[in-house]
Amino acid sequence: MMPVEVGPQARWPARSAMSRELRQLKTLEEARRILWEALPARLREGRFGARPAAISEAGGLVLDEDVVCPADLPPFDRSIMDGFAVRAEDTFGASEGLPAYLKLAGEVVMGEEPTVSLSHQQAAAIPTGGMLPAGADAVVMVEHTQPWGEDTVEVLRPVAPGENVVRRGDDVRAGEVILAAGHRLRPQDVSALAGLGIAEVMVRRARVGVLSTGSELVPHTAEAAPGQIRDMNGPALQAAVRSHGGEPLDLGIVSDDEEAIRSALKRGLAEADLVLVSGGTSVGIEDVIHDIIDSLGEPGVLVHGLAVKPGKPVIIGLVGEVPIFGMPGHPTSCLIIFRELVAEILQTACPERAARPQAVTARLTRNFASQAGREEFVPVLLEEGEGGWTATPLLGPSALISTLVRANGLIRIPAVAEGIYTGDEVEVEPL
Amino acid sequence: MMPVEVGPQARWPARSAMSRELRQLKTLEEARRILWEALPARLREGRFGARPAAISEAGGLVLDEDVVCPADLPPFDRSIMDGFAVRAEDTFGASEGLPAYLKLAGEVVMGEEPTVSLSHQQAAAIPTGGMLPAGADAVVMVEHTQPWGEDTVEVLRPVAPGENVVRRGDDVRAGEVILAAGHRLRPQDVSALAGLGIAEVMVRRARVGVLSTGSELVPHTAEAAPGQIRDMNGPALQAAVRSHGGEPLDLGIVSDDEEAIRSALKRGLAEADLVLVSGGTSVGIEDVIHDIIDSLGEPGVLVHGLAVKPGKPVIIGLVGEVPIFGMPGHPTSCLIIFRELVAEILQTACPERAARPQAVTARLTRNFASQAGREEFVPVLLEEGEGGWTATPLLGPSALISTLVRANGLIRIPAVAEGIYTGDEVEVEPL
Repeated sequence: MMPVEVGPQARWPARSAMSRELRQLKTLEEARRILWEALPARLREGRFGARPAAISEAGGLVLDEDVVCPADLPPFDRSIMDGFAVRAEDTFGASEGLPAYLKLAGEVVMGEEPTVSLSHQQAAAIPTGGMLPAGADAVVMVEHTQPWGEDTVEVLRPVAPGENVVRRGDDVRAGEVILAAGHRLRPQDVSALAGLGIAEVMVRRARVGVLSTGSELVPHTAEAAPGQIRDMNGPALQAAVRSHGGEPLDLGIVSDDEEAIRSALKRGLAEADLVLVSGGTSVGIEDVIHDIIDSLGEPGVLVHGLAVKPGKPVIIGLVGEVPIFGMPGHPTSCLIIFRELVAEILQTACPERAARPQAVTARLTRNFASQAGREEFVPVLLEEGEGGWTATPLLGPSALISTLVRANGLIRIPAVAEGIYTGDEVEVEPL
Repeated sequence: MMPVEVGPQARWPARSAMSRELRQLKTLEEARRILWEALPARLREGRFGARPAAISEAGGLVLDEDVVCPADLPPFDRSIMDGFAVRAEDTFGASEGLPAYLKLAGEVVMGEEPTVSLSHQQAAAIPTGGMLPAGADAVVMVEHTQPWGEDTVEVLRPVAPGENVVRRGDDVRAGEVILAAGHRLRPQDVSALAGLGIAEVMVRRARVGVLSTGSELVPHTAEAAPGQIRDMNGPALQAAVRSHGGEPLDLGIVSDDEEAIRSALKRGLAEADLVLVSGGTSVGIEDVIHDIIDSLGEPGVLVHGLAVKPGKPVIIGLVGEVPIFGMPGHPTSCLIIFRELVAEILQTACPERAARPQAVTARLTRNFASQAGREEFVPVLLEEGEGGWTATPLLGPSALISTLVRANGLIRIPAVAEGIYTGDEVEVEPL
């Protein structure tokens, strides 16, 4: 074979095609097993790096810490009725026929510490939620009172000590664990945290570094000159990470330059829980990424190449405690591999995002050839007609954007099959 | 009854208790019907105000516009193989025994417009994804070639015109609608938009103004002086809005001041699709909010007061096309009313958030008295034991924070019941 020098490919040290072919492809199932056995227990259990989050934005996230009540709640004895704060004993025996006459000593203003304190035979007007003044131990509802002159109130019914009052600490006591580590925050928990004045909590949230490589790539926000391609996998993987409850860390686009890739991956390893690097189209880029991952730390590359279409270029590595995935450059393949391999890890931290829609049984509208010996995932257009659901395979050499936007289902062809035929019943997972 | 002057309540013009009692309470069902009949069609269908969103953050949102392909895709004829760009006719009849000999005219570099153009009997090295040079109409795979001297390539198999090439516009043509208004963006759609260089799209996203009123309130991030209360409903409603796919607009906290409330609500009406105002604990605040809503525009207040516990203080209004909800001040009540009344509107824009978890049948662990004549929602602690599920009602005068964090279920007591008893089977909706 001619050693053709074609564009940037020539930059990579050549490995023989033979050495690449000898590499043993793993099935998806084998790859998953190898990955999960190597994963640190922390990640297997979804305990991603804890990060602080403002409670107003922490709804739906998982606590990484027990949250302890910082102070007694309520912080003071409080009235639960509009009425008059009293000493209960001053009302004992009171009735409509024989009211207790209590001198008005003042009033409690909402939102202020009472300036009044009660002696025997005194009362103070108090609103719902008002702080009980010193000396008072109960509240008489306004409906059970009558004014008597300018500065006296008639109490028409007795109250027991503590009646119509919530005591300091009755709700939650200082030091009590109110929300445990591992709990997912609901709006009502946010409400409680706000009430306790806890503005920030430590939450578990997978931060996923997303790197795109390829000298041909420009950011999707830029003009693509002829021969250049806008980066699609970066924004798509970021969206996929978000849709699984993770937080993307944009590592940008680097050209096919070993040092640039290494340095971006190092940043990812330092700042993220998981790193995704999608390869460009250059020949040899896979091997370069393989070697960089191996050189960055133990155990390095765990799997290189899946017996899955798409998946042959996939690399699964682990550097220290951070998994790195070399993703296919082809946008559809990249998202299928994310779905089949990466999503699962993020879902351990966010299990309610794990539910996949129920598969639909459909009839294939045309033949689709598949290579025996590897499992294949095929994006399809799922349509409901009079005769039930139909599935039309969408992949084709020209169908890049159109496959992405038209595909609303995925079918899996097992490794033993050599293809599927028009009219075959297939199980389609809606996308 | 004595006209007690208690704290800030006194600031409000008094309405007689009678006029408040005469107000006709609506059942939840009646209120829903009145609300939905009055809602503009736009909101009934989830078409909330369209806003621009960067595609990298638009995953999961609904398009408000058809997205049209701005240019042919691919934008140029492109090779799908590593090999040599040729004129197909120059290879006709080529075989291993009788190769076609083509002069190397140059090479196509990835990411660059070709500088070479082909004449008859010429070829140019081209990488996968490379732009076809002028004059070429097919690509011969490198495996079907041999070098011959310094500047010539042997072609061992013929190619047809268009072979191994994707033509400009084969994937999507300029002007084609690739994603229709109403479509919810998936990661693969983000990928496609990035590929097309569409960095921003118009999406439907409910912006919900959230206002807390009450002179006793301070922000949850502030120290609460004695007699002050940290705002819980603001952060909780914001979290609830987010959990239903909306975008909260924080209208802050205002004291019990009519002008301050009016001005904050006006801002909400101008900037949001929906406004939530949670009332403080002051007597009369409901009537003040009622009057402000009525004064802000037609049709004004639609419902004031629900025959639902909690829900008596609820106000449902519509000013122009913007619904305003007066929410209960009590944090648990506020979230229950959000769930029963407001969530539904947001869900029309975000139906996949609408799925509620399956109800659980449980046995009540203690008696719970309820007032006949109004429906009641009761937060419970749902626990699984040896004898099946049990439900323990959690409401109590002191149980503010503890109810919020402990409640993991909600039971509904119909208006006809006067209570439920220990051992009763109840349907519990998990929270």
